[in-house]
Amino acid sequence: MENFETISGGICAAKGFKASGLYCGIKHGLPDGNESPVSNKKNDIAMIFADVECNAAGVYTSNKVKGAPVVVTKNNLAKSGGKARAVIVNSGNANTCNADGEEKAVEMCRLTAEALNIPMEQVIVASTGVIGLTLPIEPIKYAVPLLAEKLSYEGNIEAATAIMTTDTVRKEYAVKFTVDGKECHLGGMAKGSGMIHPNMATTLNFITTDCAVSPEMLQKALSEIVKITYNCLSVDGDQSTNDTCMLIASGLAGNTEITSENEDFQTFKDALYQVMKNLTIMLAKDGEGATKLITCVCSSAPDLDTAIIAAKSVIRSPLVKTMIYGEDANCGRIACAVGYAESDKIDVTKLDIFLASKAGKIQTYKDGLNMDFSEEKAAEILKEDEIEILIGLNSGEATATAWGCDLTYDYVKINGDYRS
Amino acid sequence: MENFETISGGICAAKGFKASGLYCGIKHGLPDGNESPVSNKKNDIAMIFADVECNAAGVYTSNKVKGAPVVVTKNNLAKSGGKARAVIVNSGNANTCNADGEEKAVEMCRLTAEALNIPMEQVIVASTGVIGLTLPIEPIKYAVPLLAEKLSYEGNIEAATAIMTTDTVRKEYAVKFTVDGKECHLGGMAKGSGMIHPNMATTLNFITTDCAVSPEMLQKALSEIVKITYNCLSVDGDQSTNDTCMLIASGLAGNTEITSENEDFQTFKDALYQVMKNLTIMLAKDGEGATKLITCVCSSAPDLDTAIIAAKSVIRSPLVKTMIYGEDANCGRIACAVGYAESDKIDVTKLDIFLASKAGKIQTYKDGLNMDFSEEKAAEILKEDEIEILIGLNSGEATATAWGCDLTYDYVKINGDYRS
Repeated sequence: MENFETISGGICAAKGFKASGLYCGIKHGLPDGNESPVSNKKNDIAMIFADVECNAAGVYTSNKVKGAPVVVTKNNLAKSGGKARAVIVNSGNANTCNADGEEKAVEMCRLTAEALNIPMEQVIVASTGVIGLTLPIEPIKYAVPLLAEKLSYEGNIEAATAIMTTDTVRKEYAVKFTVDGKECHLGGMAKGSGMIHPNMATTLNFITTDCAVSPEMLQKALSEIVKITYNCLSVDGDQSTNDTCMLIASGLAGNTEITSENEDFQTFKDALYQVMKNLTIMLAKDGEGATKLITCVCSSAPDLDTAIIAAKSVIRSPLVKTMIYGEDANCGRIACAVGYAESDKIDVTKLDIFLASKAGKIQTYKDGLNMDFSEEKAAEILKEDEIEILIGLNSGEATATAWGCDLTYDYVKINGDYRS
Repeated sequence: MENFETISGGICAAKGFKASGLYCGIKHGLPDGNESPVSNKKNDIAMIFADVECNAAGVYTSNKVKGAPVVVTKNNLAKSGGKARAVIVNSGNANTCNADGEEKAVEMCRLTAEALNIPMEQVIVASTGVIGLTLPIEPIKYAVPLLAEKLSYEGNIEAATAIMTTDTVRKEYAVKFTVDGKECHLGGMAKGSGMIHPNMATTLNFITTDCAVSPEMLQKALSEIVKITYNCLSVDGDQSTNDTCMLIASGLAGNTEITSENEDFQTFKDALYQVMKNLTIMLAKDGEGATKLITCVCSSAPDLDTAIIAAKSVIRSPLVKTMIYGEDANCGRIACAVGYAESDKIDVTKLDIFLASKAGKIQTYKDGLNMDFSEEKAAEILKEDEIEILIGLNSGEATATAWGCDLTYDYVKINGDYRS
């Protein structure tokens, strides 16, 4: 989209946001007192701090087992009327299913509020990592004052590194756009590699913007865009307990606050879509053990929901995932996954299937039936790293995209021994 | 159960059922004319033939993409008023998503009816294997008369071998029981290893009995028992297009026909449960790439449906499956899977979790919270080949069991290149 320029800076791209990150030994114990606090071990705790009080919107896991930080964050924002100043987030421990979980999450907020001299209910707290392991508070007590000291307008990389668990790459994306004649910025960071499945705000995501948007419009934009980005992502079909997607707006761009569904709101949503879509693709590409990105576009669907359901069913199928890994054009598996998608509005006798990549595009199914296609061409297409599965329902005008990855030996390896 | 004696004989255990199987080259071409028709290649086509007209009941895939044989079998039984004499079934090709699929499935019935001199609509046809590949009819034309010649009351092993695809073991089970003072027999064979997921009659299953049961009661028993056996099985979350579970009753045991829900009906259902439960366990154990059988028992649930939903959610979770493979007691993943189970009736704050095997039993979660348990003991328990995950919802009296297997490197290997 020509209105958006991709920029660097992640969560610090927007005006008024500082960040920091460091290693404090959540999983492996405090750094040795004699070492520099920033050892060569990967950062495991991060802080974001806004120069001004911000409007905040959130979407959270729909799992009934909820991480204590999810509960505490929701409580805080309810108390503060949707206002937030800071985020504290750790990796290495999900602080979920622990008897003292909420107490510890509240303590994280208290420590952060104290260090930054802000009200406790304006702190957003999040955790990611092993479920059902007591969160050690000592490393956090040690880290929070240091994080506050280290805060900087260039701290986005330190923070984005801190939230990684089995992620192999850091995930940041930001854009620049114009609203009401003012230059606005919107950027985010995300983590997530496994335990990723639709119907929630997948994984941990923090997005900041300097565009002025009312709390209601902020929530509306976030909910709409989550539906067609993060919620259209599946790595393994497991729905995490700690998913949190936060959107925080400082308003420092100086535009007239967006308070209704006007043209500016549309521009803002487009910017949010750009960032969230690109973070979604990064998450899919970096799915645990993944070697290939799979994009499934469902078109000519009767409505958006049906298009999403069909595309997600294909993306989730272990047999489709292994077929892409094996570079085998066994497209009956795609037809099969469309057939069991939970929708009454899919007429499988109209189903068309295409495979595509940089190497070309071929049709393999027409009207629900297998076609005589070139296996050679299919092999060429499937050799690429980014594969598109295009399904046509020929029953309407709606289109949706879902993202996922192949299923490989390494997914099994990574998850067979996750806690150690 | 003391009323049931496990016996051999599979689908030939009941009076009046002959079977046969042979290799005809569905996938790899006709056997060389100079060779014996029974080469050392695995059987790929089987026939069952009843001495008398039987009552037949069926449960079929709920996938909207249905194999042509599923459609043809349903049509036949509708025409025959639920009467059947013969089954013809091949592996190596699912005959699904093919333009000439129904024509070929009908032709299989015609050939069988001709060879056995019975009405065409009394033939049950089934196919399993690759989807979207034209079914070669020549091997079937060659095979059917030979299968008819070879039919024998000891043909169950030849037949059970013929329906295997990626199965590594043959799956047969049979019991002897008494109804109305008469000795009855009920036995079955099953195939299935991948593309296995609840909400359907998983895979191909054929069960025969000499117990006299009316068509209505036969269907009622089958539907009830499918719900708590095959439908509580998940290997990979993919729902096949060709699932067919047939129950065929010859009535030759000589008992008064069961026509209502009396005590005899209960005895018959118990026998059916024994056979179907044991076939389900065999299917789970032989899941593609599986090294461990996982049994999840959900107890103290508010009702049966909730118990099934919770147990199946755990069995299906890729992260639970890899944790069992890795012998890692990361029970937060079990709590997580219960948390996203699709039921409003689960109170996760009451959730108890236990791990058990021949090596012992330990509790790891109480009231939804992680407990301090012995990792050593857990490691001992998880070293075994058959693992039980016990979840207590503490909200009622209902119990259900679901069966599955671990997720291993070999699942990926088997499915990365299935067609060749």
